[in-house]
Amino acid sequence: MKKALQGLRVLDLSRVLAGPYCTMILADLGAEVIKIEPPGDGDDSRAFAPFIGNESAYFMSLNRGKKSIVLNLKNEKDKAAFLELVRIADVLVENYRPGTMEKLGLGYEALREINPRLVYAAISGFGHTGPYSQRPAYDMIVQAMGGIMSITGEPNRPPTRVGTSVGDITAALFGTIGIMTALNVRNESGKGQKVDVGMLDCQVAILENAIARYEVTGQAPKPMGSRHPSIAPFEAYPTKDYFVIIPAGNDALWAKLCNILGITQYIDDPRFKTNRDRVANVEVLYDLLGEVTKTRTTAEWMEILESGGVPVGPINTIDKVVEDPQVLAREMIVEISHPVAGPMKIAGNPIKLSDTPGKVSEPAPLLGQHTEWVLRDVLGWNDERIAAFKSE
Amino acid sequence: MKKALQGLRVLDLSRVLAGPYCTMILADLGAEVIKIEPPGDGDDSRAFAPFIGNESAYFMSLNRGKKSIVLNLKNEKDKAAFLELVRIADVLVENYRPGTMEKLGLGYEALREINPRLVYAAISGFGHTGPYSQRPAYDMIVQAMGGIMSITGEPNRPPTRVGTSVGDITAALFGTIGIMTALNVRNESGKGQKVDVGMLDCQVAILENAIARYEVTGQAPKPMGSRHPSIAPFEAYPTKDYFVIIPAGNDALWAKLCNILGITQYIDDPRFKTNRDRVANVEVLYDLLGEVTKTRTTAEWMEILESGGVPVGPINTIDKVVEDPQVLAREMIVEISHPVAGPMKIAGNPIKLSDTPGKVSEPAPLLGQHTEWVLRDVLGWNDERIAAFKSE
Repeated sequence: MKKALQGLRVLDLSRVLAGPYCTMILADLGAEVIKIEPPGDGDDSRAFAPFIGNESAYFMSLNRGKKSIVLNLKNEKDKAAFLELVRIADVLVENYRPGTMEKLGLGYEALREINPRLVYAAISGFGHTGPYSQRPAYDMIVQAMGGIMSITGEPNRPPTRVGTSVGDITAALFGTIGIMTALNVRNESGKGQKVDVGMLDCQVAILENAIARYEVTGQAPKPMGSRHPSIAPFEAYPTKDYFVIIPAGNDALWAKLCNILGITQYIDDPRFKTNRDRVANVEVLYDLLGEVTKTRTTAEWMEILESGGVPVGPINTIDKVVEDPQVLAREMIVEISHPVAGPMKIAGNPIKLSDTPGKVSEPAPLLGQHTEWVLRDVLGWNDERIAAFKSE
Repeated sequence: MKKALQGLRVLDLSRVLAGPYCTMILADLGAEVIKIEPPGDGDDSRAFAPFIGNESAYFMSLNRGKKSIVLNLKNEKDKAAFLELVRIADVLVENYRPGTMEKLGLGYEALREINPRLVYAAISGFGHTGPYSQRPAYDMIVQAMGGIMSITGEPNRPPTRVGTSVGDITAALFGTIGIMTALNVRNESGKGQKVDVGMLDCQVAILENAIARYEVTGQAPKPMGSRHPSIAPFEAYPTKDYFVIIPAGNDALWAKLCNILGITQYIDDPRFKTNRDRVANVEVLYDLLGEVTKTRTTAEWMEILESGGVPVGPINTIDKVVEDPQVLAREMIVEISHPVAGPMKIAGNPIKLSDTPGKVSEPAPLLGQHTEWVLRDVLGWNDERIAAFKSE
């Protein structure tokens, strides 16, 4: 079966996370992603822990299914080869600090002269315009500046980072939407364009109702642990072995829950009679419920509450996630075999297309593994030219 | 200037967050999004706090730029009008529990008979296949089941939810990528397809290096507050008024930082000499640095460290985010004027396209505001037919 993006050629100049996550999605959907790495150590993340042997598991999970060619873009000979690739590419992705590509003579304005059909995606910390445009950015900096850190964590405790790099990852997702949108426009207009996505912008875009809450109340929203701001009971309660989520927001579920927990005396207690009452007395409610939930394990509560018709969810640690029957049934953990590191498990592709499904099957490339393939099969160079290129 | 998705017609049957966030992006990019709401109260989130007057700011921020038509899909007359819309639509988005559309006789198989070019996107809690497919899902449940909650929060403290609904929002983003990809395929094949995105799958997809860390070490990763797992100093330090992020990972930055903080005696202290040493003694390091950072405000440290060449970032609360010069320069806070609620500020569109930029300018619709417009201008009905439809 044909893959969705089969035939789409992507030049990937990006490093570490935001850019590579974007091109990972494109590769999973069937695009030919040619990763252009600098000589020496290649993508910085090849040196990131954890390792399997000498291979970075971090790098391998993000770069599955891509090809690697080593080119030094500061060198005229290599730059000429790169420009040959630009001529026949559909998409270019880079996550340099704004201005870096221009300094190399490879900014969007220059490249579109060579290939007006090129979709050029730049994913950067703060975007290509505005007063902070030139600042260096790290995931944690944009999580902090964009507000999500100020609403994540426990009340009256230090702010905490989201446990995964949502600053990079959401920029990758919005960037991918931008690329696919620009390709759709190109189908009609014949012309490419520049997609400029800033990590900080994306953090603002995912704040959900926090901006509205601030605008309406004038109060900056605060972190609430695992507690729902306006429904109770709806948070993580302690169990014998960890925690369990009980979202039992309406009065019928509240009564059911009290029956199952053996605390029927609270059903009509004026402190807890309606959702409004329960939200007003949520601290007392938490302590009362916690006393009971502590007496059994999460697995026990899952069974008891599910069979009693009360919604419930476990807080899975990663070891549980990778064995979860639903996660496995949806092929969200896949095993790939790397030529050096051997078999490894990585996250699958969550975009399930009925007619042109993606498939995660090829491992990440070794540094420069496809240099000769790219020169020969993509650019059509002959043996002589390849040999001359390599010997220089 | 033409918008990127101008001419794309989207039927939106979705409610609350995951589906509406997806169609919000499509509307921001220029698509015509026709929101089909049930009679009575419409989209559930019209009743969600906070309110401006009687209008939900939650609903208004997610549904800007869409049209609203009221149709009761359990009623044959309304269903017939809906099927007329399906015939001329490009995309349909729904976030019902799997099977709901089939029960209405409106499942993908039925709709593609009517319009083989339709891209049908289903965003659900657990996806349309697998053992949990029929379970109800809430954002907090998939955050908990998907592992992100187990790695967010402080060490040895209760797990905390990410402060925004990343379970819904990442599903919206992957769903949008799926839709745009299917539209690209259709440009060539002439055929639509079904896009099936599960919220739990998306949580697994954004775990980043946590899966690799578990696979390599056999240890489930734990929450670390705001601390970077492998670089130090790199976390939030307390200031006189709040906190500040200092990511000073390499030895040169460490020396610079010590100079600025007036603690040069630690530069070559064997506990802190290299990054490896600093990571090994990160608790002591935190206390030592925190003693100094506590003596000034975040704004003071921002100025002192920036001018000293040490990376630094504030942890902005939402009131600061909406006034940030970069956020404003990037048009990430935009004001729209609602016919009933008046002017309000909402998050902008982070996908900046050079040739076909989006624009957030139209407010969210009142319930059924565009019913007549849809019947007349989209379906081409005459006055008589519209009158008959309304009187039935």
